[in-house]
Amino acid sequence: MTLILNNEEIQHALSAEDCLEVMEEAYREQASSQAVNRPTSHSYLAHSLPQATYSFKSVDGGVRKFGVLALRITSDIVQEKNVNNSVRLEKLPLAGTGKFLGLVQLFSVETGELLAIMPDGLIQQTRVGVTSALGAKVLARPDSEVLGLIGSGGQARAHFRYLTSVRPIKRVKIFSPNSDHRKAFAAQMERETEIPTEPVGSAEAAVKDSDVVCTATNSSRPVFNAKLLEPGMHYNAIREFEMDEAALERCDVVAIHTRFGGIQHHLPPGLDRDLPGVRREKPRDWSRYPEISDLLVGRAPSRTSDRQVTLFLNNVGTGVQFAAMGYCAYRAAKEKGLGHEVPTDWFLQDIKP
Amino acid sequence: MTLILNNEEIQHALSAEDCLEVMEEAYREQASSQAVNRPTSHSYLAHSLPQATYSFKSVDGGVRKFGVLALRITSDIVQEKNVNNSVRLEKLPLAGTGKFLGLVQLFSVETGELLAIMPDGLIQQTRVGVTSALGAKVLARPDSEVLGLIGSGGQARAHFRYLTSVRPIKRVKIFSPNSDHRKAFAAQMERETEIPTEPVGSAEAAVKDSDVVCTATNSSRPVFNAKLLEPGMHYNAIREFEMDEAALERCDVVAIHTRFGGIQHHLPPGLDRDLPGVRREKPRDWSRYPEISDLLVGRAPSRTSDRQVTLFLNNVGTGVQFAAMGYCAYRAAKEKGLGHEVPTDWFLQDIKP
Repeated sequence: MTLILNNEEIQHALSAEDCLEVMEEAYREQASSQAVNRPTSHSYLAHSLPQATYSFKSVDGGVRKFGVLALRITSDIVQEKNVNNSVRLEKLPLAGTGKFLGLVQLFSVETGELLAIMPDGLIQQTRVGVTSALGAKVLARPDSEVLGLIGSGGQARAHFRYLTSVRPIKRVKIFSPNSDHRKAFAAQMERETEIPTEPVGSAEAAVKDSDVVCTATNSSRPVFNAKLLEPGMHYNAIREFEMDEAALERCDVVAIHTRFGGIQHHLPPGLDRDLPGVRREKPRDWSRYPEISDLLVGRAPSRTSDRQVTLFLNNVGTGVQFAAMGYCAYRAAKEKGLGHEVPTDWFLQDIKP
Repeated sequence: MTLILNNEEIQHALSAEDCLEVMEEAYREQASSQAVNRPTSHSYLAHSLPQATYSFKSVDGGVRKFGVLALRITSDIVQEKNVNNSVRLEKLPLAGTGKFLGLVQLFSVETGELLAIMPDGLIQQTRVGVTSALGAKVLARPDSEVLGLIGSGGQARAHFRYLTSVRPIKRVKIFSPNSDHRKAFAAQMERETEIPTEPVGSAEAAVKDSDVVCTATNSSRPVFNAKLLEPGMHYNAIREFEMDEAALERCDVVAIHTRFGGIQHHLPPGLDRDLPGVRREKPRDWSRYPEISDLLVGRAPSRTSDRQVTLFLNNVGTGVQFAAMGYCAYRAAKEKGLGHEVPTDWFLQDIKP
């Protein structure tokens, strides 16, 4: 049977412990040539709404040990909007009754079968948060007790959850520009995790005296000045452009998620950059930094003193992360009897491809 | 509702007339920057069987006018086998009860929704045959009456069907190395199309005195000598390596399917070429030849006399072809009430991607 899951079922299925263990295993497999990634592709077409573009993204990756390859796709309509004199990209919920489409499809490496189809929303947040947590596990001081978290969205939630799973965090300071958002987020996370939270009024206040600092934002500009990083701190960023580039100099040990691939953009021939919402930010050159998998298997050094400042940049996603988290969700959902099943045979054929 | 189709339903849904019309429209849209393609990617992992490799292929493409983007994937286990002292690649039917997995997934460009999931087997044969037929439509002599067809598999069947739909073919000569296969194939196609067929004993006999010659084989070596091409003939090849390279000199007008992309191969880092079944034949340089879409919109010249020899090389597949044929199958199946429906909502989410 092919399993069809929704986000509620995935939330019920996933445990932080499993996710951290399986993701770490995936990176170890990758380090020993038993996992594969292909770079992300975006295909674009004009949309009928003004300033809107259809954007289809895909990436895949597999881990032999788990017996799965995952394909992650998103099928989005993005629209450029002018907000406070700057252009913002908004994804429009035009599917069904105001919804979005993003899927992880899991294939069996042993039989070729389609094992499961699940939404990518929770998996996406989880894969970023879990990888950041593994970064903190190898780089942050073992006695880290204070987390300074900047952001209050889905990624901030995942980072709260997973960073506090790998270090004995006793207090979380939270900043995001909207004071209602940060208060509501702080209250919600405190209820959920029973870890005391403290909404603070500035990014600086979130950074000051923290042991682990995490930016989990959508910002395309640095959210705090790298000079604020103090001896002994670990800084985790989830986008290269939310991070002050000076952090690379300020930190004694720097690691990234992956040196792998950039995004490949495909437009109708001749249109080139003429579609709204097609951003092709050129990533910085990360080739000289070690990857998380190098640190996990001891091929690159971690911190050697409690005074060093460390940085983990969770720069771009990979298919292997979706394979690992998709596998976690699938395995747990099967065990717990969650989801809809449809006959696997619906997706098979006699015709030899 | 999301429609799930099988090959029988697709066969019932597709008409040659629709397929030819929709595919031609797709190429015209492509010529006016209203269609998008991304190159094919292959991701590989080691398989537990000896000399076997897991191979996941994907390609996507969309046509704005049809409102769809198609993703085509295959999830295969390929095994290297020694047959008559040469290495052959075999796809193993390990899914379900001896089946294969290959899918076309159709997405709405307007809403982002998943419209349909269907097997790729018949769509794949159809997209190649229909594109070859469009090549013959613009290049072959209008009075072509004899088709010489080399091959007796699924592609030969599709080429028989579609080439005879665009020219007044009155007789089809058929060669394939196994005499039982070619006889059975000739008898079957004659029954199906009511066009007289004649199994012949050599590739040379199939070519001689034909108006249109078509090779539809798996061969990696030329299946006949280009010197056999006579004035007035049109030659259609579906793989560059089954064609004698000298045909490029022998023919007065040459066109290809697409100059677009090559195949991108992804292996676990460090393994490089060590997996069995990973073939990376370097394609020849086709950049100086016009594409079928150029000919269809009059941007490149066709034959100017009945004495010229023309060549159409249907070199590689594109996502746009899957969008066009997937759209054909989806539209017709909806009209005829074919297939299983599952709630579109199963594949949607509230979480903003």
